[in-house]
Amino acid sequence: MRLSRYFLPVSKDVPADAAIVSHQLMLRTGMVRQNGAGIYTWLPLGHRVLQKIEQVVREEMDRAGAIEMLMPTIQQAELWQESGRYEDYGKEMLRITDRHDRDMLFGPTNEELITDVFRTYVKSYKALPLNLYHTQWKFRDEIRPRFGVMRGREFLMKDAYSFDLTEEDGRASYNRMFCAYLNTFDRLGLTAIPMQADTGPIGGDLSHEFIILAETGESAVFCDKDMLDLPAPGLDLDFDSDLSGEVAKRTTYYAATDEMHDETEFAKIPQERQVSARGIEVGHIFFFGTKYSEPMNATVQTAEGGSVPVQMGSYGIGVSRLVGGIIEACHDENGIVWPQSIAPFEVGLISMRPKDETVSKVADEAYETLKAAGFDVLYDETDERPGSKFNRMDLIGLPWQIIIGPRGIENGVVELKNRKSGEKSEVALEKAVEMVKAG
Amino acid sequence: MRLSRYFLPVSKDVPADAAIVSHQLMLRTGMVRQNGAGIYTWLPLGHRVLQKIEQVVREEMDRAGAIEMLMPTIQQAELWQESGRYEDYGKEMLRITDRHDRDMLFGPTNEELITDVFRTYVKSYKALPLNLYHTQWKFRDEIRPRFGVMRGREFLMKDAYSFDLTEEDGRASYNRMFCAYLNTFDRLGLTAIPMQADTGPIGGDLSHEFIILAETGESAVFCDKDMLDLPAPGLDLDFDSDLSGEVAKRTTYYAATDEMHDETEFAKIPQERQVSARGIEVGHIFFFGTKYSEPMNATVQTAEGGSVPVQMGSYGIGVSRLVGGIIEACHDENGIVWPQSIAPFEVGLISMRPKDETVSKVADEAYETLKAAGFDVLYDETDERPGSKFNRMDLIGLPWQIIIGPRGIENGVVELKNRKSGEKSEVALEKAVEMVKAG
Repeated sequence: MRLSRYFLPVSKDVPADAAIVSHQLMLRTGMVRQNGAGIYTWLPLGHRVLQKIEQVVREEMDRAGAIEMLMPTIQQAELWQESGRYEDYGKEMLRITDRHDRDMLFGPTNEELITDVFRTYVKSYKALPLNLYHTQWKFRDEIRPRFGVMRGREFLMKDAYSFDLTEEDGRASYNRMFCAYLNTFDRLGLTAIPMQADTGPIGGDLSHEFIILAETGESAVFCDKDMLDLPAPGLDLDFDSDLSGEVAKRTTYYAATDEMHDETEFAKIPQERQVSARGIEVGHIFFFGTKYSEPMNATVQTAEGGSVPVQMGSYGIGVSRLVGGIIEACHDENGIVWPQSIAPFEVGLISMRPKDETVSKVADEAYETLKAAGFDVLYDETDERPGSKFNRMDLIGLPWQIIIGPRGIENGVVELKNRKSGEKSEVALEKAVEMVKAG
Repeated sequence: MRLSRYFLPVSKDVPADAAIVSHQLMLRTGMVRQNGAGIYTWLPLGHRVLQKIEQVVREEMDRAGAIEMLMPTIQQAELWQESGRYEDYGKEMLRITDRHDRDMLFGPTNEELITDVFRTYVKSYKALPLNLYHTQWKFRDEIRPRFGVMRGREFLMKDAYSFDLTEEDGRASYNRMFCAYLNTFDRLGLTAIPMQADTGPIGGDLSHEFIILAETGESAVFCDKDMLDLPAPGLDLDFDSDLSGEVAKRTTYYAATDEMHDETEFAKIPQERQVSARGIEVGHIFFFGTKYSEPMNATVQTAEGGSVPVQMGSYGIGVSRLVGGIIEACHDENGIVWPQSIAPFEVGLISMRPKDETVSKVADEAYETLKAAGFDVLYDETDERPGSKFNRMDLIGLPWQIIIGPRGIENGVVELKNRKSGEKSEVALEKAVEMVKAG
C-alpha cells in the first residue's frame, strides 16, 4: 500500500480522555475513532489488525475441528425466556422493539440461539461430537464503557459451542478448546495463562479464563511463575488424541483471578515462584453440561434408544479486545511493537528522497519485490522529512522497516531495522527479504 | 472437509413457506435457518458462500483503489438529525434506546457516519480522492420481509463512499466504481446490467442499479439485448486512466427499471433487441455531490485557500442478497449449480465404498492430493448408499464431483463429473486436478 493513497490519520497529540496506553496509541495511530460511548469505527490500520487476529483465531478453531458458521446480531426475546436468562441478564442486554412491537435484543452471547439451531437439526448421538463457532459483533450495554476497545459496548467476539453425548465427551471437547486457545494466543505473540474462573451468568462448574499479564490489567491475578515458561501444545497436536495430559500439565499449577483466589493455597508455592500481578482476560471457556439443553429441550437419542439432554460448553475469545490487549503487552516509549503474525503490515518501506529519480525507481522496485515475496507492505513515498517518516513508522509499530536512500543504493544495500530490538543492518534487498521471512 | 465431521443438515422436503426457488434451495441444503422474520443464521455451507462473495467483492474494491475499514452496526441518532434523515427514514429504521436513554439506531446505511469520520480527519484537497468501504451487517425493518435472504431485515452489505474536490473528480470516482462493479459481478459468474435508477432516500441525480435477470426478479426491467453481450472491463483495467469511455459504452444503450422506464425511448430499439424481463438488484451506486457534506459541514480546503463542501458518492453491493440472487440465476431441477469462484467447495469427493479398505485408501489419498492442489474439498466418506450421495452432491451444487470406486481403481482412473453440463469423464486423478483448475 502506497502511503500517499492510504488513509492513516496519525496524530501527535496524546488524547486527554484515554486512560490507558493501548487506547492512547490506538487513537494516535488512527486505528479507531469513537462514535459514541463504547462504540468504535475501525479505521483502515485498525481494521487490518482486527482481520488478522480473526484469521489466526479461525485457523486454530478449524484445526481443532470446530466448524464455522454465523449467527445474526439481532435475536428474538422468546429464546431467552425459554432458557430463563431474559430477566436475569439485566440492563447489560440491549433490548429492542421492532415496528410490529416484537421483543428482540442485540445478542450479548449466543448460548440460546445455538441451542435452538442444534435442537432443530440434530436428533442422534451419531452426529456428535459437534463444535460450531462464529465471529460476530456483540453488544453489552456496560454502564461505564472505558479503556477504548478493551471494554467497549459493541465488540467482536469469537464464540464456539460444543455438543456431546456424555459429560466425559463434553470434557474432552473442553480440553480441545483449552489446547486450541493456548496455540491461538501463542501465535498472537502472547503468553496467556489459563486460570480457574467464576462462571458468572454463563453458568456451569468448570471454567477457565485465559489471562495475559499487563500492568494496566483489570484484575489482580495470582499464579506459579513456572507456568509462564510452559510452551504451547504446538500446531502439530493431534486433536483426536486424549488431551487431558496437556490440560493437567497446566492446571496442576496454582493460577487464579482474584474472584477465585485462595490465599492458603497460594502460600504453598515457594515464595520466589509466587507471581502476584495484574492481568487482562482475553478468552474464557465454560463447560456447563445441560444448563441450556435441559430447559430448551435439546435432546439426542442414545445408542440404546433413550433420549438425553446434550452436554454443552462455550468458548469465547474477545477479538476486538485483543487488539487493545496486545498493545498493552507490546509497546515501548516510541509506540506500538506489533507481533509479526498480526501486524497491519509486516514491512514499512521508506523512500528517503522520493523526488530523486534514482531513489524513487529503486524504492518502487523494492516495493514490487517485497509484495511479490508475499508481504503486506506500507510504502512511504511521501515527500515529508525523514524524521517524521521514521517517527510515524515507529509509532505504528510495523515489525520491520526498510529504508532506501542514495548512499545505500551506491553500495547496493538497504537499511533494515527491526522495530522491537531497534537493531539495524545494511544488507542487500534479497537478504532483507530472507530476514523478514525468518521473522 | 470430511462430511462425517461436517454440519450439513440437508433436507428432502420442499419448505412450504418458501416462495422462491433460491429460498427453497437454501433451506433444503442447510445453508441458512430463519431465526425470526427476515433474520437468518448462516449455517456452515451458507457461510462459506457468503465469505467467498465477500472476498471477491473485497478484492475488486481494493483493485479499484478503495480502502477497507469497518464501521459499527449501532449509530447515534444525532448524526442523522444533522443530515435531516432521522425523521425521513421512517419505520424502516430500527430505533434503539440504551440504558442511559440515549437515542441510537441499527445502521440501515452509513452516509452520515462516514461523513463524520471524513470531517474529523480530512481538511485538505491533498488527501483526495479518497474512497473508504466496509462490509458490515445492516438492519432495515421491512414491513414484510420475504424471499429469504433476498429481502431480509438483517443483511450484509458492502458500502463504499467516495470523496472528491470537484464534481468532475466525483464523477471519475463514480466511474471507477461503475467499472469495478462490472468486474465484480463478472467474477461472481453473473451478467449484471447497469440501469438508470431512481435515487430514493440516498439522494443525488446520478445513479445506476446493477441488475441480474431472473424470472423471479422483484422488478420489471427493460434493456437493449446487445448490452447483455458486452464483456466486463477486465481485471487489467487501469483505474488511474479516464474510464468515461468504458462507462459510456454501456450507458448509451437503453436500460431502465420500471420506475425509470420510458416507453417511447424503448420503442426506438429494433424490436428483436427489446428485452423486457424481470431482474434482481444486486448493486446500486449513487453520486450525490454535497447532499451530506453541506448540512454536516464536511469541507476541504482548496489549492487557492478557499473551503468547499466535499463531493460524495456511495456504492452498495448486497452481499447476503447475492447468495440468493446467484442461486436464482444458477440452478436446475436437481439443485444449485454454483459458479466455481464462490462455490462453498470446489470439489465434492465421493467414496463409493468407504468400508472397502482399498477404496477408502485411494479416496483418502485423493482427498489429500486435492487439498494439496489448493481446492476446497467436501469428502463424502459416509456409509450411505451411492444414490443418496449423488443426489446430495447435485443438490448442494459443487461445480465438480470426483467419484472413487473399485472399478475405476482397477483402471487407474476416477470419475469426474461437471455439475453444470452433467458431463462425465474417466480420467487419472492428475488429469482431473488439471481440469478442475482450468474451471
